Amino acid sequence: MKFEGKTAKDVKIAYIGGGSRGWAWLLMSDLVSCPQLSGSVYLYDIDREAAEHNEIIGNKFNDIEGAVSHWQYKAVKTIGEALDGADFVIISILPGTFDEMESDVHTPEKYGIYQSVGDTAGPGGIVRAMRTLPMIEEIAENVKKYCPKAWVINYTNPMTLCVKQLYDTFPEIRAFGCCHEVFGTQKILKAIYEKNTGETIDSHTDIKVNPVAVNHFTWLTTATYRNQDLYPMYREFCEQHHETGAQDGGDDNWMNNSFSSGEKVKMDLFLRYGVIAAAGDRHLAEFCEGKWYLASPERVSEMQFALTPVSWRKEDLKRRLEHSAGLLSGEKQPTLNNSGEEGVHQMCALLGLADLVTNVNIPNRGQIPNLPIGAVVETNATFRADSLNPVFAGEIPASILPLVSRVCAEQEMVFEGIKERNVQKIFAAFVNDPLVTCGIDDAKKLFIEMCENTKEYLTMFNWENL
Amino acid sequence: MKFEGKTAKDVKIAYIGGGSRGWAWLLMSDLVSCPQLSGSVYLYDIDREAAEHNEIIGNKFNDIEGAVSHWQYKAVKTIGEALDGADFVIISILPGTFDEMESDVHTPEKYGIYQSVGDTAGPGGIVRAMRTLPMIEEIAENVKKYCPKAWVINYTNPMTLCVKQLYDTFPEIRAFGCCHEVFGTQKILKAIYEKNTGETIDSHTDIKVNPVAVNHFTWLTTATYRNQDLYPMYREFCEQHHETGAQDGGDDNWMNNSFSSGEKVKMDLFLRYGVIAAAGDRHLAEFCEGKWYLASPERVSEMQFALTPVSWRKEDLKRRLEHSAGLLSGEKQPTLNNSGEEGVHQMCALLGLADLVTNVNIPNRGQIPNLPIGAVVETNATFRADSLNPVFAGEIPASILPLVSRVCAEQEMVFEGIKERNVQKIFAAFVNDPLVTCGIDDAKKLFIEMCENTKEYLTMFNWENL
Amino acid sequence: MKFEGKTAKDVKIAYIGGGSRGWAWLLMSDLVSCPQLSGSVYLYDIDREAAEHNEIIGNKFNDIEGAVSHWQYKAVKTIGEALDGADFVIISILPGTFDEMESDVHTPEKYGIYQSVGDTAGPGGIVRAMRTLPMIEEIAENVKKYCPKAWVINYTNPMTLCVKQLYDTFPEIRAFGCCHEVFGTQKILKAIYEKNTGETIDSHTDIKVNPVAVNHFTWLTTATYRNQDLYPMYREFCEQHHETGAQDGGDDNWMNNSFSSGEKVKMDLFLRYGVIAAAGDRHLAEFCEGKWYLASPERVSEMQFALTPVSWRKEDLKRRLEHSAGLLSGEKQPTLNNSGEEGVHQMCALLGLADLVTNVNIPNRGQIPNLPIGAVVETNATFRADSLNPVFAGEIPASILPLVSRVCAEQEMVFEGIKERNVQKIFAAFVNDPLVTCGIDDAKKLFIEMCENTKEYLTMFNWENL
Amino acid sequence: MKFEGKTAKDVKIAYIGGGSRGWAWLLMSDLVSCPQLSGSVYLYDIDREAAEHNEIIGNKFNDIEGAVSHWQYKAVKTIGEALDGADFVIISILPGTFDEMESDVHTPEKYGIYQSVGDTAGPGGIVRAMRTLPMIEEIAENVKKYCPKAWVINYTNPMTLCVKQLYDTFPEIRAFGCCHEVFGTQKILKAIYEKNTGETIDSHTDIKVNPVAVNHFTWLTTATYRNQDLYPMYREFCEQHHETGAQDGGDDNWMNNSFSSGEKVKMDLFLRYGVIAAAGDRHLAEFCEGKWYLASPERVSEMQFALTPVSWRKEDLKRRLEHSAGLLSGEKQPTLNNSGEEGVHQMCALLGLADLVTNVNIPNRGQIPNLPIGAVVETNATFRADSLNPVFAGEIPASILPLVSRVCAEQEMVFEGIKERNVQKIFAAFVNDPLVTCGIDDAKKLFIEMCENTKEYLTMFNWENL
Repeated sequence: MKFEGKTAKDVKIAYIGGGSRGWAWLLMSDLVSCPQLSGSVYLYDIDREAAEHNEIIGNKFNDIEGAVSHWQYKAVKTIGEALDGADFVIISILPGTFDEMESDVHTPEKYGIYQSVGDTAGPGGIVRAMRTLPMIEEIAENVKKYCPKAWVINYTNPMTLCVKQLYDTFPEIRAFGCCHEVFGTQKILKAIYEKNTGETIDSHTDIKVNPVAVNHFTWLTTATYRNQDLYPMYREFCEQHHETGAQDGGDDNWMNNSFSSGEKVKMDLFLRYGVIAAAGDRHLAEFCEGKWYLASPERVSEMQFALTPVSWRKEDLKRRLEHSAGLLSGEKQPTLNNSGEEGVHQMCALLGLADLVTNVNIPNRGQIPNLPIGAVVETNATFRADSLNPVFAGEIPASILPLVSRVCAEQEMVFEGIKERNVQKIFAAFVNDPLVTCGIDDAKKLFIEMCENTKEYLTMFNWENL
Repeated sequence: MKFEGKTAKDVKIAYIGGGSRGWAWLLMSDLVSCPQLSGSVYLYDIDREAAEHNEIIGNKFNDIEGAVSHWQYKAVKTIGEALDGADFVIISILPGTFDEMESDVHTPEKYGIYQSVGDTAGPGGIVRAMRTLPMIEEIAENVKKYCPKAWVINYTNPMTLCVKQLYDTFPEIRAFGCCHEVFGTQKILKAIYEKNTGETIDSHTDIKVNPVAVNHFTWLTTATYRNQDLYPMYREFCEQHHETGAQDGGDDNWMNNSFSSGEKVKMDLFLRYGVIAAAGDRHLAEFCEGKWYLASPERVSEMQFALTPVSWRKEDLKRRLEHSAGLLSGEKQPTLNNSGEEGVHQMCALLGLADLVTNVNIPNRGQIPNLPIGAVVETNATFRADSLNPVFAGEIPASILPLVSRVCAEQEMVFEGIKERNVQKIFAAFVNDPLVTCGIDDAKKLFIEMCENTKEYLTMFNWENL
Repeated sequence: MKFEGKTAKDVKIAYIGGGSRGWAWLLMSDLVSCPQLSGSVYLYDIDREAAEHNEIIGNKFNDIEGAVSHWQYKAVKTIGEALDGADFVIISILPGTFDEMESDVHTPEKYGIYQSVGDTAGPGGIVRAMRTLPMIEEIAENVKKYCPKAWVINYTNPMTLCVKQLYDTFPEIRAFGCCHEVFGTQKILKAIYEKNTGETIDSHTDIKVNPVAVNHFTWLTTATYRNQDLYPMYREFCEQHHETGAQDGGDDNWMNNSFSSGEKVKMDLFLRYGVIAAAGDRHLAEFCEGKWYLASPERVSEMQFALTPVSWRKEDLKRRLEHSAGLLSGEKQPTLNNSGEEGVHQMCALLGLADLVTNVNIPNRGQIPNLPIGAVVETNATFRADSLNPVFAGEIPASILPLVSRVCAEQEMVFEGIKERNVQKIFAAFVNDPLVTCGIDDAKKLFIEMCENTKEYLTMFNWENL
Repeated sequence: MKFEGKTAKDVKIAYIGGGSRGWAWLLMSDLVSCPQLSGSVYLYDIDREAAEHNEIIGNKFNDIEGAVSHWQYKAVKTIGEALDGADFVIISILPGTFDEMESDVHTPEKYGIYQSVGDTAGPGGIVRAMRTLPMIEEIAENVKKYCPKAWVINYTNPMTLCVKQLYDTFPEIRAFGCCHEVFGTQKILKAIYEKNTGETIDSHTDIKVNPVAVNHFTWLTTATYRNQDLYPMYREFCEQHHETGAQDGGDDNWMNNSFSSGEKVKMDLFLRYGVIAAAGDRHLAEFCEGKWYLASPERVSEMQFALTPVSWRKEDLKRRLEHSAGLLSGEKQPTLNNSGEEGVHQMCALLGLADLVTNVNIPNRGQIPNLPIGAVVETNATFRADSLNPVFAGEIPASILPLVSRVCAEQEMVFEGIKERNVQKIFAAFVNDPLVTCGIDDAKKLFIEMCENTKEYLTMFNWENL
């Protein structure tokens, strides 16, 4: 890599999971839209053909209208080829297939446990972690071997535990986890402000927030615009809309497009705990006691959010495979679509091209003093020339500490259990998960069944003492 | 107070709640059995007649066989008379009557919530705290006024919050909470050791333990006898008995007398979390997810412990009132019965007559580094000449941290809500209590009903924003 | 205040110490050079005439070439008029006169104690703090009364203790201390990089650093440019130049203009402790054991820095008074001179007009985990829409912790002594100051003499137990 | 080892440094005076003949009048033989000879640096640590190999660093450092109380204290007897005696025998800092700024304590060698002399025979929250059946934190330097030691000379970058 004026050339990015149909194309779009960077992207995927297809597709992005930069894409056979000498590493993998995810999400329904996403918390998140962390461990070992100084950006879920694994395997790793969930709440705050004042705000990033806690169960302890505290406005909004939800038409039709749920979970949490819950409702609900928002499909519907069935994901994948074929054949053309992620901005900032303050997931060194040191937490951080420092976020407010400290400690224990390949320990965390409302005996049956369903990926565990 | 050789004379004890029928008589017995102390006990109770009866009964203890010390009992009209110049203050009050307790314990049953005790945690513990803390606040203010240097021993439940209240109202108070729950597990360990080795141990206090966490949800991170770690022996015991329970006859009949439950909760927790749970099963169960041990009366029975109905307490009270009448009339004679509490030993130690190391409830100053500073925790402490210092207990083990940190943070929030007389905040904690498995809407109905039932004692709260 | 597009209008700044000859004019220049802000500056000074002169001078800045903004200056009689409704408060006062400062700096020389500045640490810093903190206390009380939500920027020394006082008097104050010392080292690093590589760096702010510790004894635990760690380059530089100093001609003549000392103190500290000391040598020397760099004027000279005699300050003041007269009479014209401070940028950022990351002095909430909570520390912070958050700076490195923790704890104790008006406690800190190498008895004589010399400002202290 | 009733039989003690002339005989006396323990002591020493002599002498202790227990002594050739299967390990070694110690103590005098002991802090303590820690490292490795569960009692100086080394080499070690220094101040407090009240106190251990900080620079934050705070009495005593010293005749002649110094250092520190300094004056002085108490032999004399020249130690050794010969030949008889140490009581307590609370040196796990975790600190601890737990000692008071935190951080850095065999790092600590008042250049000369004088023991260090 080298600098020319205000730009960096010959940047090498290793993309692990580079055969992705969908997210990869958004990254390609982001990269080619950034005038400050150019270089090459090495695509590695256990589905090699998919990576090769993306090599072809990626290279086509250089030619589309609006492209202001040039990137060479290259599918490689080994992870070492991808990582060797990389400046940045992107990790975005699917651990297993949607069949395993189907078990994660839907098997618990037999016991009355509903999950709206099932990839982060709850029974599904735990079993997914069992599959995922050994893969992440292998990636971390390769980073250590091939590019120990590279900046590693993880997008894989369960985010918290993946980042924990990266640091556990290679403590000197320069890794962080990125997630756009918080942006959604910044957009809500922007919309509320605009509606209340009649003013227009350029971007949700103009809403300055102090996020705390863990990924997908993130809270904003402050939210400001210019010289204004947005908390009072948000309270008023919640008081008005918490019963009806925020998407119904009429006076509120400005919200129709931007909101994917009625935000009733978020508003309920705010009114009860006095702190702005920042992730999407589908995620927030999964960290709360199962009877609150996920007691039944009817309850979910009443709360105006949705369970995402894996059948939908399978259908969606078919559509994306078709789109991939179209792009390959030239029948379809790649287009510039902002990913909504900040990965490329973060790269620019880490190369010293501009300062950036945004939220990331990294181990707690004290940025949240009342969560355990070493647990992966989400807070703001400063991205500046080759350095990433968490912003001191302060203590988790007392009202939500019972919710958050429990989640955080449980994740630490799941991690420990997976690290030791000790299913007894994992189960001890599993049975105490907020969503596991079915009692000990049923929980054990469920856990065994879920593991059985995904056993192909769990061969490294010791099942003896369960 | 003055010292004569190895004894302290003219010790003044103020007993708040001194009209007690039952526990007061055990204290009288303990006092008159201790050759190192003598003096006077001032009995204060809002039921003044009960205090006067205990004045008469207490003075009779001086004359019974085996008495080695002399104590003058005196019922007083005002709390000031009791506290003025006191060396020690004992707080052992019943907040409200058994009618209120009946609501605490049994109203939640409508929503499928069973409580085995209902005075510490769960819905019952929270509403009881609402009644109790304003009373404790008043006592603390009087301690500040009348005897700021006195040592204050609290026995009232909910223990954790009562001690928190004492320190919150008067930060310089020299108070601690005493509870004998841990002794039960020391006795189990003693019995296991004796059975395994054929040896005899003098006393459960010879089993040295390191208790951590909060009252009634206390855990032992170490347990030793002489030069031996008792953990392996306890594990073996649990592995053998966790299914059958520990009280069944045959080979195990040595346990018939010492155990009040089958200890299945305790053993289940140990086998899942690897740490010895130290309180009685009735208490432990109340801090765990409601579906684990308290899902139904059948589940309780299967786990071999018991729900204590308040009807039993009412019957028991009748028996004790009869006994009181008998003692007053001279029909019955007072007898020496060890209370099983360590209050008198603690007084001796605080007067410098002998060192003592035992467990107490005091605010966390760092003795448990991974619980919040200021939260009331239970650990060992050294009692020595006019000084009480917590023993550094170490971190709550990772496996039980999700359970404990949640409970501890919830109690902090209940406290804050009560302090602010803010029922909305109390409800936010209530709905997140591990026993409240009924969803948000039912939880609110339940909370309102429970408050309504005990409203006579809750006049100071602001109900507006609930 | 109101926003129009990307600018803020009608901003009200209260300037306490607004009669300054010199620094005030730089602020006027900075303000009139910033197109994003306009409004009024209220000048308050105990020397009212000086403030009135600056009202006249300030208003002239609006008319000079290059002015892109308009500010109304107004001298006021009372601090209340200045503060009432202010958006920002600037505190930049001289506590006492240069006569008192002369005693601070030069009286210790009788005992072989030399001070290069004498306004922060050492005997001079301590006695100056005794004069200053009661003044700051009064200002803080007025901020609380007149503009509790205003952002307060302190420039007065001793910085650490002044900021501590602001927060101690009014804990909700939104105050921070600004100091440009770190910029000097950023400039050195810039110069080294440029010389080594032949490249040009736009600005010292492109050198990204992580400052830690306390004002004027600040250290950089990281220093990067783009994707490069500057530590190896700095080490090499120090190894080459630590004996000769960094300003001598020849090959190194690029340094002639930018460096005010030979930087030998800074280089010596780096070579011994492995961490970049970031303040100017004159300041650094005062926090080290007196025999290291300040043993004698000869030693100072050998180390290529300078003692700043107060006689020079008095001469300089004369020149500045003449300049003031010239500006008033119109004989001289105000000119645009960048102050080198970041105050105006910080204001813009706090109004949400642009994000800023820079170093500030605020109480430690945990941003430096191994210094006491509440002690005022210097680290980076994020300035964003109405919010200021410290960047988590990490632990003080082990090698410099003995130096820093001592200084920090001593300042805490000086603060406590001044707060209690307890000269015995202040002396206990004084005698343990690194510069006080003269033994206990001489230290007491010195302390008394210094207090005596400045007694006019120390009437609030209790001298009894000294 | 086995238990019979209330006694432990066949206890195996490994004594490293078992050839000692003097201290070994006190241990023999303590052991044979304790009815609860019996067994064997394995003596290992690099001076094998000395160990063999002590085998003969030790066995003679069994036959003297007053012996209530029996111990078999056995000199062994290898450390493995001594440690294999040991229940307790005692480490009491002399690192090098008195020739090296002569350099430690007296070489610094050339630069005006006087040391009253020279084995803990100051230049002498640092160089002694360089010799000692590699030896301790080897012992720790052998403990790990031969008796990982043994309790290890260290008496070797520098205490703090030796204990740090034990834990660093073998983190699971069950080691603690014992020192009787605090008892001296308990005796002073006892004497003051007795004189003031006319009462008699049985033992200095009846004075209950809370020691904090580091070995030989230990402070008592509380001191009580029965129900009385002794601070006011101690203050009065200091106010009366700090100028004259505490040993002068007349009214104060009760002190003639018990005090080895005039206690002026201790009293001066109390009057300045408000906390009772607990070690002997000779030790305390070495942790303070060199000009305070050790500026010159005259200053030492004025402060009524003494420099202990190594020539005295050499003379004393001659006397002890003669005594050894007498004991061997039978010319002299062993006698029962209480060592003043608590080692044997600690062993009894660790075997569960009686609880004990006393002061020890172990790594800080949080018992002193404002000193670094992992630094070895001195506080009380509970000794109970196979378990040792620090008593939570609380924060170092603000007034002495500058003194203590500096010392503690310096020791950490010396440790790190020795561990890395990095003399540059050691020197960085050395030059910042409170006693090193001679400036940087002379400090370097001194350090090199001291190392040179003891180089035979420093062959493992890397001298390159000094």
